Amino acid sequence: MREAFHDQLDSIFIDLSGIARQVQEAVAQATEALLEGSAEIAEQVISNDVKIDLARERVEDQTFSLLSLQQPVAGDLRTLVAALRMVSDLERMGDLAVHVAKIARLRVPERAVPEDVEPTIRKMAMVAELMTGKVADIIADRDVAAAADLHEVDEKMDQLRRKSFRELLGANWTHGIEPAVDLALLGRYYERIADHAVSVADRVHYVVTGELASTDA
Amino acid sequence: MREAFHDQLDSIFIDLSGIARQVQEAVAQATEALLEGSAEIAEQVISNDVKIDLARERVEDQTFSLLSLQQPVAGDLRTLVAALRMVSDLERMGDLAVHVAKIARLRVPERAVPEDVEPTIRKMAMVAELMTGKVADIIADRDVAAAADLHEVDEKMDQLRRKSFRELLGANWTHGIEPAVDLALLGRYYERIADHAVSVADRVHYVVTGELASTDA
Repeated sequence: MREAFHDQLDSIFIDLSGIARQVQEAVAQATEALLEGSAEIAEQVISNDVKIDLARERVEDQTFSLLSLQQPVAGDLRTLVAALRMVSDLERMGDLAVHVAKIARLRVPERAVPEDVEPTIRKMAMVAELMTGKVADIIADRDVAAAADLHEVDEKMDQLRRKSFRELLGANWTHGIEPAVDLALLGRYYERIADHAVSVADRVHYVVTGELASTDA
Repeated sequence: MREAFHDQLDSIFIDLSGIARQVQEAVAQATEALLEGSAEIAEQVISNDVKIDLARERVEDQTFSLLSLQQPVAGDLRTLVAALRMVSDLERMGDLAVHVAKIARLRVPERAVPEDVEPTIRKMAMVAELMTGKVADIIADRDVAAAADLHEVDEKMDQLRRKSFRELLGANWTHGIEPAVDLALLGRYYERIADHAVSVADRVHYVVTGELASTDA
């Protein structure tokens, strides 16, 4: 009975890791749509989001049924509740990728990001995608050390966000209002993807150790 | 035993409603800081946020202990899991009020919002505060009808956000980049407060009826 329970728990974590991979793909594609100015790829991100939503529902259903049929306590209860929160973070990351794709789509056939500030937003996008990929591994391997490392990567994101603000508010900005507003929002979306990635990693830490991550205050 | 359980469940909902009131106050004060350009009020919102975080922890602890000691099934289980999600939405709304306050503080002694576009952002702020207040009542009264109404109020928010974009991207915009970026982000923060309010209301609907709100797909 308990063994079957832990098999089901493992299966939920495999699903969570799979959702993180789907989100990573969504982030990568949204960035491609943004930097290439591709409506087609943007549409793909937007229409694929329903798959992430469905995968979320499946994990929620499985988790609820384990909660209600097995009535777990202590560590197992903590793990199931953490799974519900992780899937909610992951789904939100998918939504944020959709927001990026929608800005890309809005500006087609132009590209939303002016060439001279593309390096910064490209780096933010790469960090967001990297963090999402790491999250997939962290969930699959219950890798507490890698979960802790994610906080450092997130600092890189914060630095890039500040740099992006300096660029668009600087005296050299010649692109007018619309690209500035797009960049501010894009920066916010990538930053939030990173925040949710850290949150998922912290929950893995909590599941494995029973303790809140030190920076999770 | 079951009666004690339901007393404890009621007590959790009273706490949730209380947190919603704290958040409503935070939203109101953040808006005041923003529109008056008051660093003092902004600081107050920022430092008060720790109280919301602590209140969240208390609700989480209570909910966990009920989950683990009482091992509820069906409706009671659903209610407790919903409580965990509601408190997470509410805390996030508090964080968003802090983001508004931080933009206010950044621009002191100036005001972040130019006078001619203040009416739109003021309306967004009022809608966000109104929705947060309604959420406090909806939780306290398990008011499913009012929860459904919140979707309509949220449409008002979406209209205002679009109006705000038209203003700051319009040909008449004379305020330069920084206020445009501030307004875009402020609009985003108020819109997200409203989204979370709808999410909390939908969870009340779910707790009471056992069914997902129709627009909660």
